[in-house]
Amino acid sequence: MKELNSSYLLHGGDYNPEQWQDYPQILEQDFKLMKDANINTVTVGMFSWAALEPEEGVYHFEWLDDVFDHMNEIGGKVILATPSGARPAWMAEKYPEVLRTNSKGEKLYFGERHNHCFTSPIYRAKVQEFNTLLAKRYGARNNLLMWHVSNEYGGECHCELCQEAFRHWLKNKYGTLKALNDAWWTTFWGHSFNDWSQVHSPSPLGDSNLNGLNLDWRRFVSDQTIDFYSNEIQPLRELTPNVPITTNFMADTFDLIPFRGLDYFEFAKHLDVVSWDCYPAWNNDFETPKHTAMKVAMIDDYFRSLKQQNFLIMESTPSQVNWHPYNRAKRPNVHRLSSLQHIAHGSDSNLYFQWRQSRGASEMFHGAVITHEGSSKTRIFHDVHQVGQDLNAIAEVKDCKHAKAEVAIIFDHENMWALNDTQNYANETKNYWQTLQSHYQYFWEHDIPVDIISPKVDLTAYKLVIDPMHFLMSTKFMDQLYKFTSSGGTVVGTYLSGVVNENDLAYLGGWPEQLQHLFGLKVEETDTLYPNQSNVIEMDGQSFRAQDYCEVISNISAKNLAIYKDDFYAGRPAVTMKKVDHGTSYFIACRTNSDFLNSLYELISKRLELKSDSSIGKDNAAVSIQIRQNSTHKYLFVMNFDETAHQVELDHSMTEMLTNELRNGTVKIPAGGVAIFRDQIV
Amino acid sequence: MKELNSSYLLHGGDYNPEQWQDYPQILEQDFKLMKDANINTVTVGMFSWAALEPEEGVYHFEWLDDVFDHMNEIGGKVILATPSGARPAWMAEKYPEVLRTNSKGEKLYFGERHNHCFTSPIYRAKVQEFNTLLAKRYGARNNLLMWHVSNEYGGECHCELCQEAFRHWLKNKYGTLKALNDAWWTTFWGHSFNDWSQVHSPSPLGDSNLNGLNLDWRRFVSDQTIDFYSNEIQPLRELTPNVPITTNFMADTFDLIPFRGLDYFEFAKHLDVVSWDCYPAWNNDFETPKHTAMKVAMIDDYFRSLKQQNFLIMESTPSQVNWHPYNRAKRPNVHRLSSLQHIAHGSDSNLYFQWRQSRGASEMFHGAVITHEGSSKTRIFHDVHQVGQDLNAIAEVKDCKHAKAEVAIIFDHENMWALNDTQNYANETKNYWQTLQSHYQYFWEHDIPVDIISPKVDLTAYKLVIDPMHFLMSTKFMDQLYKFTSSGGTVVGTYLSGVVNENDLAYLGGWPEQLQHLFGLKVEETDTLYPNQSNVIEMDGQSFRAQDYCEVISNISAKNLAIYKDDFYAGRPAVTMKKVDHGTSYFIACRTNSDFLNSLYELISKRLELKSDSSIGKDNAAVSIQIRQNSTHKYLFVMNFDETAHQVELDHSMTEMLTNELRNGTVKIPAGGVAIFRDQIV
Amino acid sequence: MKELNSSYLLHGGDYNPEQWQDYPQILEQDFKLMKDANINTVTVGMFSWAALEPEEGVYHFEWLDDVFDHMNEIGGKVILATPSGARPAWMAEKYPEVLRTNSKGEKLYFGERHNHCFTSPIYRAKVQEFNTLLAKRYGARNNLLMWHVSNEYGGECHCELCQEAFRHWLKNKYGTLKALNDAWWTTFWGHSFNDWSQVHSPSPLGDSNLNGLNLDWRRFVSDQTIDFYSNEIQPLRELTPNVPITTNFMADTFDLIPFRGLDYFEFAKHLDVVSWDCYPAWNNDFETPKHTAMKVAMIDDYFRSLKQQNFLIMESTPSQVNWHPYNRAKRPNVHRLSSLQHIAHGSDSNLYFQWRQSRGASEMFHGAVITHEGSSKTRIFHDVHQVGQDLNAIAEVKDCKHAKAEVAIIFDHENMWALNDTQNYANETKNYWQTLQSHYQYFWEHDIPVDIISPKVDLTAYKLVIDPMHFLMSTKFMDQLYKFTSSGGTVVGTYLSGVVNENDLAYLGGWPEQLQHLFGLKVEETDTLYPNQSNVIEMDGQSFRAQDYCEVISNISAKNLAIYKDDFYAGRPAVTMKKVDHGTSYFIACRTNSDFLNSLYELISKRLELKSDSSIGKDNAAVSIQIRQNSTHKYLFVMNFDETAHQVELDHSMTEMLTNELRNGTVKIPAGGVAIFRDQIV
Repeated sequence: MKELNSSYLLHGGDYNPEQWQDYPQILEQDFKLMKDANINTVTVGMFSWAALEPEEGVYHFEWLDDVFDHMNEIGGKVILATPSGARPAWMAEKYPEVLRTNSKGEKLYFGERHNHCFTSPIYRAKVQEFNTLLAKRYGARNNLLMWHVSNEYGGECHCELCQEAFRHWLKNKYGTLKALNDAWWTTFWGHSFNDWSQVHSPSPLGDSNLNGLNLDWRRFVSDQTIDFYSNEIQPLRELTPNVPITTNFMADTFDLIPFRGLDYFEFAKHLDVVSWDCYPAWNNDFETPKHTAMKVAMIDDYFRSLKQQNFLIMESTPSQVNWHPYNRAKRPNVHRLSSLQHIAHGSDSNLYFQWRQSRGASEMFHGAVITHEGSSKTRIFHDVHQVGQDLNAIAEVKDCKHAKAEVAIIFDHENMWALNDTQNYANETKNYWQTLQSHYQYFWEHDIPVDIISPKVDLTAYKLVIDPMHFLMSTKFMDQLYKFTSSGGTVVGTYLSGVVNENDLAYLGGWPEQLQHLFGLKVEETDTLYPNQSNVIEMDGQSFRAQDYCEVISNISAKNLAIYKDDFYAGRPAVTMKKVDHGTSYFIACRTNSDFLNSLYELISKRLELKSDSSIGKDNAAVSIQIRQNSTHKYLFVMNFDETAHQVELDHSMTEMLTNELRNGTVKIPAGGVAIFRDQIV
Repeated sequence: MKELNSSYLLHGGDYNPEQWQDYPQILEQDFKLMKDANINTVTVGMFSWAALEPEEGVYHFEWLDDVFDHMNEIGGKVILATPSGARPAWMAEKYPEVLRTNSKGEKLYFGERHNHCFTSPIYRAKVQEFNTLLAKRYGARNNLLMWHVSNEYGGECHCELCQEAFRHWLKNKYGTLKALNDAWWTTFWGHSFNDWSQVHSPSPLGDSNLNGLNLDWRRFVSDQTIDFYSNEIQPLRELTPNVPITTNFMADTFDLIPFRGLDYFEFAKHLDVVSWDCYPAWNNDFETPKHTAMKVAMIDDYFRSLKQQNFLIMESTPSQVNWHPYNRAKRPNVHRLSSLQHIAHGSDSNLYFQWRQSRGASEMFHGAVITHEGSSKTRIFHDVHQVGQDLNAIAEVKDCKHAKAEVAIIFDHENMWALNDTQNYANETKNYWQTLQSHYQYFWEHDIPVDIISPKVDLTAYKLVIDPMHFLMSTKFMDQLYKFTSSGGTVVGTYLSGVVNENDLAYLGGWPEQLQHLFGLKVEETDTLYPNQSNVIEMDGQSFRAQDYCEVISNISAKNLAIYKDDFYAGRPAVTMKKVDHGTSYFIACRTNSDFLNSLYELISKRLELKSDSSIGKDNAAVSIQIRQNSTHKYLFVMNFDETAHQVELDHSMTEMLTNELRNGTVKIPAGGVAIFRDQIV
Repeated sequence: MKELNSSYLLHGGDYNPEQWQDYPQILEQDFKLMKDANINTVTVGMFSWAALEPEEGVYHFEWLDDVFDHMNEIGGKVILATPSGARPAWMAEKYPEVLRTNSKGEKLYFGERHNHCFTSPIYRAKVQEFNTLLAKRYGARNNLLMWHVSNEYGGECHCELCQEAFRHWLKNKYGTLKALNDAWWTTFWGHSFNDWSQVHSPSPLGDSNLNGLNLDWRRFVSDQTIDFYSNEIQPLRELTPNVPITTNFMADTFDLIPFRGLDYFEFAKHLDVVSWDCYPAWNNDFETPKHTAMKVAMIDDYFRSLKQQNFLIMESTPSQVNWHPYNRAKRPNVHRLSSLQHIAHGSDSNLYFQWRQSRGASEMFHGAVITHEGSSKTRIFHDVHQVGQDLNAIAEVKDCKHAKAEVAIIFDHENMWALNDTQNYANETKNYWQTLQSHYQYFWEHDIPVDIISPKVDLTAYKLVIDPMHFLMSTKFMDQLYKFTSSGGTVVGTYLSGVVNENDLAYLGGWPEQLQHLFGLKVEETDTLYPNQSNVIEMDGQSFRAQDYCEVISNISAKNLAIYKDDFYAGRPAVTMKKVDHGTSYFIACRTNSDFLNSLYELISKRLELKSDSSIGKDNAAVSIQIRQNSTHKYLFVMNFDETAHQVELDHSMTEMLTNELRNGTVKIPAGGVAIFRDQIV
């Protein structure tokens, strides 16, 4: 892995001086204001192709040269973006092949961004040529920190070039049409293909319900995007082998679900550093700030887990965004607290989109360090300045690892695709990621580190593996899970698991034997409830609500922890436990609220002695304590996401780094407050 | 009419062995499991074109031969489907003419099903060729029970071939463009055509609000579909003149409205046997099981009425479906009760989609007799086995007629089309079929048989004809209705009736005179209420709520039964009665809840001595009693749709056929229970 | 300005005899029935192109000649429409260029109406040719009252002709591509154009989020529509220079928002008389009749303000419409009250769509004077007859001006476009026009006349100018506003004002200085609240709810009238006042309910001595009093929109014109009642 050539936590963000070339007084102020704002890093060039090559073969790199120079003067770094996210209008006009075609076969006009054909040989060549120029011109710059390749990869193209690429991908995968017909079960509705040319991407004008096709198309789109990226970075790797490479990943609003279009576990293998763009909706009217914080924590943990290393926040807003349904400004404290939360979970940066609000065009009202007001006198500037100061105060945290997790939650992009696409259950209530969040909650409230991992990851590093709603599950993974458990691990499985194989074909012969052995039970039926229906399960004399999905299971060799109280499966097991050689498995047959999950994980955590590595006592679950550490120190981030103050207890004296004060005993953390304690490892 | 060559009630369903040709052990088990499940009939070949003719001119009938052989071995019958519902991919590729074109003029890709052009000469020829092969090869098979032509006909094509066919249809109907311009009232918005080539099907890119065009297009689509079907069955009629023919009809989820795309009354004339696919949402969270049962009862009565003869359930699920918003499994008892309900209403079958769950593709999770689990140990298998046993126990019911109805409710597909399309009233509250259901409810609760008939049916067989919301009504029918009433019949009419003629042109000169004579009143105005508005009507000192539509009528010669209490028409008649020679007419001027309709029909039923032919007493309306009979016996189906047990009273001893026990006096019917009594006709 | 050649208030409406050429007995009755209904004016020819020119070059004007003749016989006038709103089918077939192309580049089929390409040279020539024929044939008719050009202009075309016209418009506006790139801020997302050919109209397939493009496209569409209109009226102006010209404008259902597609302030400059089509939803279930009345009053005031002269109601319904979601009939009194309300606000007509209900096609159920019933015996006919009688009774009101307004509310079409399009705040709660209504309410309730004016209008005529949510505001207007205020005017400004300039580019350097000087404050932040969030503001010890938008302002030199009570800006100013030389400015920083606005405007009105010119006392805000006057008389329209009766007090005797009775002292106005008093100016 290539390390970032930086001794400090990155603070800064997207800088777009090409927008201001006619405003020299503004360009002049920028670097002074950056310094005032404690900014040390800018990202440039993201959508600058038209600015750098306004006509084919005519280049204007001067303004970009200036950025490197000026940043150098203030001791700052440059993250250099490649411009492939938005090609110039002249290119779209001259080479229409580069334009994307939608699923109805309509070729798009020039417009928006992120809309190139990812197969087009012309676009791929153009991108390589341009990146070669960039690498040659800036590769030797001492303050070139890393490459930011393109921007927020996503979307798909259905042009004839892509159809051919898809067919090629399918040939590679299946070898024969017979194998493809078998995997897609095309005998249903008489869909068997007898020539590769008959295969076409999913389309509202053709097939949109053939789940095997849909799943392979999703895989192809992910692979082809990575392939496009790989083509794009080739000159960078050749010419600047020591400069690390990232591209910025995304999560959906509002539930912070990993972007559905790509398999980030796969993509991350091709990056040196993971970075992502974080836009939660703080202080909304549908959840508490604590709940928002939990969701942010989990998605941060996911991005940290992608490569099991620190990550970067590549974009965030110091205030509001402009494209939420309701674009509320961050309240006081929120910017500081939310920025340091990312650091606490393993980020080595807090970067913004963007430095200065654009004067026009679609995102002109997106929050930025410098607003249209233009000065350093705004609340936003003050908040940013404060965060910059904080990051400097804790600079030693940089490169410290997040506390090691003994708990892993399995998340699988392919499972998400297959589950979302399956025509069964109830689309309204599938909620895969939200279900993972409900499992995550207990550990977050108890400051127990959690990794969010792919099924392809080695499980042996963990004590507890939680694997909810694993609908599409390979037998290989079943074996792995069994081995993990019998070797002493603890696993939690749930309803809607082990239903189909990698090709989205149902397992025949009943619930897979490996799972029967693992959990000591058979799944007989899945009962899908309407939203106003529910069941009750009882554990240790306590009742909990079950809803959405209740599986009827027959217990073979497990111990019942909870049973159903209602409906025709009243009295049958709802939650079970089984000793598996040296390990233990739990199975939760129905969807419950977090009250039940908290009770269950309390029990399991006690048994496994899972706990926070923090010696700091706390009295409220809305106070989150996250730890980063190196060989000599632990850094304890104590964050109060509640709307009232809380107290924590220190059992020995430690330095609070933001105030640089030595503290001991009871420390009050105000509402929205944060304290970071340096604790020597003894 | 061709009778089904079967001495028993059909039990079985769709069988798709072409999906399992690579799983010989499964194919082997199938017939043994069928026997275990008491299955006696399979439907094969429905979407099997690609399996039977994998390349143009290359045929593989062996697996289909096997089905006939194996079914013969277990004494079972085969319903042979023609495969036109899904053409092979190679055909779409080689003859793109067969692909459907949507209303925006976009030619569809290969994909999904039910999407051929119904005009294409090539497709029509291909279908005839293939059906000829089928008829030649299987026509003489002794266990060929019937032809199942294509599948769930529906949809429409807007290609140039279809435009020409539509113009041809219009020329046939109107003779001259002048006549068409007059009928469509094209002088409005200056739409007059002066060349046939200017006429185009309704389209979001062209005309979508010209109701005359819309209505004729609906008629054309229905006629052209029947024409396609007629073309398709030609070789079957020629080569297998004695094999009965059906195609499977549909009803919409959740209100079980007859499929809106076709005029089934017309289509049924071309079938030997009516069959339909029934997918209600039992045990949902928005209505009681009793209400679901009433809706199923009515749509069953509709399908029975299409040809005034027994019908078949061609598809149903033994458990869940996979395409409802919430796919809930049938609770215990529900499969038995819901299956026998169909028999009670005149079905001679209970067939399933499908025998074995597909391993992949879009409907892989649709309930089936054999689930992915693969064995006979499931609850579903047990339920199916039970129903098979039940059907055997009551085999003598086969071919018994449903008790004759003295009550008819008029339903008209053309009226539904015109009413749904009319720009007036409130689209949200038109609810034509649901209104029929509210009229039907009283009779269902009182076990009084009802036919659901077309306005083209002879009315003289009935004592009471209920004709709600008959918006598009021909003068011919008005005459018929008057004649029926003056000859001694009783008719109930309602608001929104007699507004337009067959061409969707308004009647001029006020409410048609025939209706004025019939009901003794004039309709002056129709008041459309907003959803939160209502009126009150009073009958015999009792108040009832009126909503959605209140017509202001002037009473000429009728007797007021109820008057409005509110608004500017307070004190004016809301419900009237009139003696018409030997008969009586009732008019309900406003939409009421079923409480009022129940009161009114109680009154009418007493007067007309309408009652169930059942001698069994019951104490709850959720217990439904339906009768089938032959010359010697009545078979009384007693079904409890309530969630608690109820009692019925037998005044003489009868054999309960499912238990084969002689019963008399009080018999308890558990919640969801069913009993079938054989009663000798003395 | 050309005056209407009519001594009476117009009463009548759209007459479409071309639909009834095959019904001679109906054509015969029409004029007799019109006379009976007190109708004096008909509008003909609106969609009659196909009737007048059934084949290219073949004309049938005879039926239109007849209309002029017959109207003359009954002493009536004719408003002659040009037929461009719906071209004949033969023209669409022969010259497809005249068909519109939608934003996805799909050429529409013939169908519907209002769907020509507004650039097509062929269509423009055809329209001129036809209008020349009309002007030559009917220009000299003594009872030709005015030209009604086309119908309800709206919509847009994206064909290549229009793309070229758009580029031409842009070249005219910007001169250079550089200027366009700057104005649209195309450097964002690398959108810079280097050839005019790259510019394309907004499209879901291309750019739909580039607000500069969107705004210029809206301007182009408005300008090109006016240009089309200008081309269309050229022969009329030449051949009939003395005949006034109008076209009918629109307002959206249900909030009666001026049609969003065109800038009516600009368009009105090209008309002699403003007319509009009014379709409110009286007696719905979501608001009181009083509230509906207030909305109608305001939009009438807007149309009167367009040219600061009397206007016409060109279309309305005597009963129901057919295209509302719920098409309720007008209750008794409503037709009279709602018709006279328009007169009260400055209308010189009450015209209907339409005289006789069409027998078929999409609007066949739209209310009309003569229903399908065909006689004069209906409630509708009686209501219309009554209104006709009323209009005759008050004929002297014709040409009387509405009482002069000292209060103006600024409304700007460009601001509406920019604000609706801006990606910021919350789309669900922008509600520009509805916010103007909440400001308007106080004045309406207190019978204080209000003009709704464009920012381009001279303000000096007013005492009070209310300018809410003026998001896109030119510096020129800021200067004008300042000058108005410093010269003694009073201005009210609000949140979301002064944010962008005419090109939708943000003002840099903080809130514009002119506004700072005007209001004595700076806007620091705009807080967008979620729907379930709110703040409280306090004024004079009274609390009011604030919601949706709360701006944080710093007061420089204003007086605080109200302060925020909650959130991080608690204690900061929410409403301010500032003396500006001889005038006063008020600033409302947050959205409030009308309770607060009523309190504030009570205060301001007292200070400015704003009051009704009426000497009649009233005890309820739902009684509205509007005044029209000439040099000798005032005509006081007293309208009770409440559902109970109220009393008004006359301090001297006046003639009530509808009853022709002399009244004094207490006069009772029944629910829904109206009285019109003639008061001599002394």
